[in-house]
Amino acid sequence: MKRVAIIGVGNSKFGVRSDVTYPELAFEAFKEALEDAGIAQEDIEMSVVGTVGNRLYDMYPAPLINEYIGLASKGPLRVEAACASGSAALFTAYDAIASERVETAIVIGVEKMCEVDTQTSTAIGGRGCYLWEFHMFGTSFASYYALFATAHMAKYKTTEEQLAKVAVKNHYYASKNPKAHFQKEITIETVLKSRVICWPLKLYDCCPISDGAAALILASGEKIKDLGVQDPVWIEAIGFGSDTGNLTRREDYTSLKSTKMASEMAYKIAKVKPEDVEVAEVHDCFTIAEIMAYEDLEFCKKGEGGKLIDEGQTWIGGKIPTNIDGGLKAKGHPLGATGCSMVYELTRQLRNESGNRQVPLKKYIALAHNVGMTGQYCYVTILRR
Amino acid sequence: MKRVAIIGVGNSKFGVRSDVTYPELAFEAFKEALEDAGIAQEDIEMSVVGTVGNRLYDMYPAPLINEYIGLASKGPLRVEAACASGSAALFTAYDAIASERVETAIVIGVEKMCEVDTQTSTAIGGRGCYLWEFHMFGTSFASYYALFATAHMAKYKTTEEQLAKVAVKNHYYASKNPKAHFQKEITIETVLKSRVICWPLKLYDCCPISDGAAALILASGEKIKDLGVQDPVWIEAIGFGSDTGNLTRREDYTSLKSTKMASEMAYKIAKVKPEDVEVAEVHDCFTIAEIMAYEDLEFCKKGEGGKLIDEGQTWIGGKIPTNIDGGLKAKGHPLGATGCSMVYELTRQLRNESGNRQVPLKKYIALAHNVGMTGQYCYVTILRR
Repeated sequence: MKRVAIIGVGNSKFGVRSDVTYPELAFEAFKEALEDAGIAQEDIEMSVVGTVGNRLYDMYPAPLINEYIGLASKGPLRVEAACASGSAALFTAYDAIASERVETAIVIGVEKMCEVDTQTSTAIGGRGCYLWEFHMFGTSFASYYALFATAHMAKYKTTEEQLAKVAVKNHYYASKNPKAHFQKEITIETVLKSRVICWPLKLYDCCPISDGAAALILASGEKIKDLGVQDPVWIEAIGFGSDTGNLTRREDYTSLKSTKMASEMAYKIAKVKPEDVEVAEVHDCFTIAEIMAYEDLEFCKKGEGGKLIDEGQTWIGGKIPTNIDGGLKAKGHPLGATGCSMVYELTRQLRNESGNRQVPLKKYIALAHNVGMTGQYCYVTILRR
Repeated sequence: MKRVAIIGVGNSKFGVRSDVTYPELAFEAFKEALEDAGIAQEDIEMSVVGTVGNRLYDMYPAPLINEYIGLASKGPLRVEAACASGSAALFTAYDAIASERVETAIVIGVEKMCEVDTQTSTAIGGRGCYLWEFHMFGTSFASYYALFATAHMAKYKTTEEQLAKVAVKNHYYASKNPKAHFQKEITIETVLKSRVICWPLKLYDCCPISDGAAALILASGEKIKDLGVQDPVWIEAIGFGSDTGNLTRREDYTSLKSTKMASEMAYKIAKVKPEDVEVAEVHDCFTIAEIMAYEDLEFCKKGEGGKLIDEGQTWIGGKIPTNIDGGLKAKGHPLGATGCSMVYELTRQLRNESGNRQVPLKKYIALAHNVGMTGQYCYVTILRR
């Protein structure tokens, strides 16, 4: 298995991007990644687009994007894994290099969600158990996570205040990240007093609907020598997991089995322990999701996620700084872009380029955790420099 | 790069399958592949679904299918490359084994097209240059291929009769394939007298709208020893190509550049010459597409595709028997299923299991050619036993 390095990263501004089209948004991230890598467009052998896509822009988004950015002759496929589409695309491009198929590849994660008429019905509502729970009981995406939250509160005495603290942290860091959708700090009261979406989740417990793109340029260990790249960020492992979407078949509502599968696989391949990770991006589509991720990724013991945020351990200076870019919660969550954007942030952290949000590092090990739907998919990526 | 073998194949009946749901259709192919491989469901480490999918069934088809067939914990992604989605999924699963990520994987290509309201507008119409040529000039899928046909007729004196002969051959073999959508032989007159869709293409020059699924179970060279599999079919290479969808940017209308890219890559990796191939499946969405494929895959010289069918060289007994299962033209073309179904047919041919359609083999080398859209994507897979 060949080693794979990240040699260039780019991230568009996240938010309501009615100023650009779908391919233009992808181009923003692509251009930055190409300049960051310092290579020519011709050096890229393969392009993988990660996106859910939508009817408005085309049923076939990859050629549309590759055509616009000048990679029409390098783009053989689109990869989709709902909210984890960006990570699934990274996984595919990684394998194409690790298998010695190509020496370089670009991953482009992109989504334009703010102008679509279907987001609440199919794209969001249908992220659970589509043919049964959604249609029969009206279980929407927020209500699935509300179910997880009430289960966690009942079993582990997790509180609404603890959930709110996740939102406060993530909005705080988003306010320092010019690419984040939200740029304002909030307080615990802001969250607690916001309107209930599905109890105990309130408006500020939920990530927004955002437009955005992120791009990653990968190269094999041999290729980086030819390109003169020194000291890159390495992908040590990508673990994957998946699980039933039918909640009646799940063993536990306080944990995501797919996260446990993916992280166990990634830790094992990378020969890394949870306590080695110095900075993390986790999938906080709702505040409870971040608490569950702390536990499932073994940053703390099961049931102690609330305590971890209470103690400030996931802020810079704490045990495991998490979502220092604002997370899905406040940076935004353009489905296909999210997984790539997580790796964009961690690559820059590992390169000490994060300015006033820089996490102090010793081991230079980082972890990205990207979930699709209500845990049907999960990818855990471990990076090291 | 690890070697990858095909240890099990399955194919549903193609046609108007209003008798089954989308996941049930996938199950038909899955069950046959599993029985053919003679392994247990638990032996499969990863499932890749290749499908275009549609709003009716879900924006997220992979969990729906994996849930139904009992692979919910093994299915991390869906791959899409329009009409080449099945091959793109095979490519992804192949890389996952070749990179040593997993030892076994299943590829499930599936599409249900007959009950959807959008096929002619977006799914079919939008397969060209969606944002420009389709909306501005109304260029539909058939009119793109009609354009290729008129260019080929003008440059190489290819005739409507030669196009019709492709349809006659493919209907003939479909009539001997119980899984094919069409079960009737036709004559040259049937084609020539059928109504014009977009001149020179008539109704019988066009492939139908079909439902169908096909599944392939793959394993690494090491794993087949553990499983006790003897003498499997090997995937020698998967070449990929892609090209602009904007016809004003294409150099040539009588050839698909992506086919040339993909086949050159595949021949090189497999160390196989075009004349070594003894049986082929090519992408005959329209009869002209098969003629172009003969030439682009170098089964004959450029411009001599019409002569090749005139001479009967692509029938059993000829130089290069092609689409002996009926092809897209008469077996049917359920987008995501097609690439997998091609490999299903060739695997059975290489195992001498094709009964009254068996091609006599000496070298046991086969080739599958799967195109997406109007040549934006292409995959060429070379198999050997």
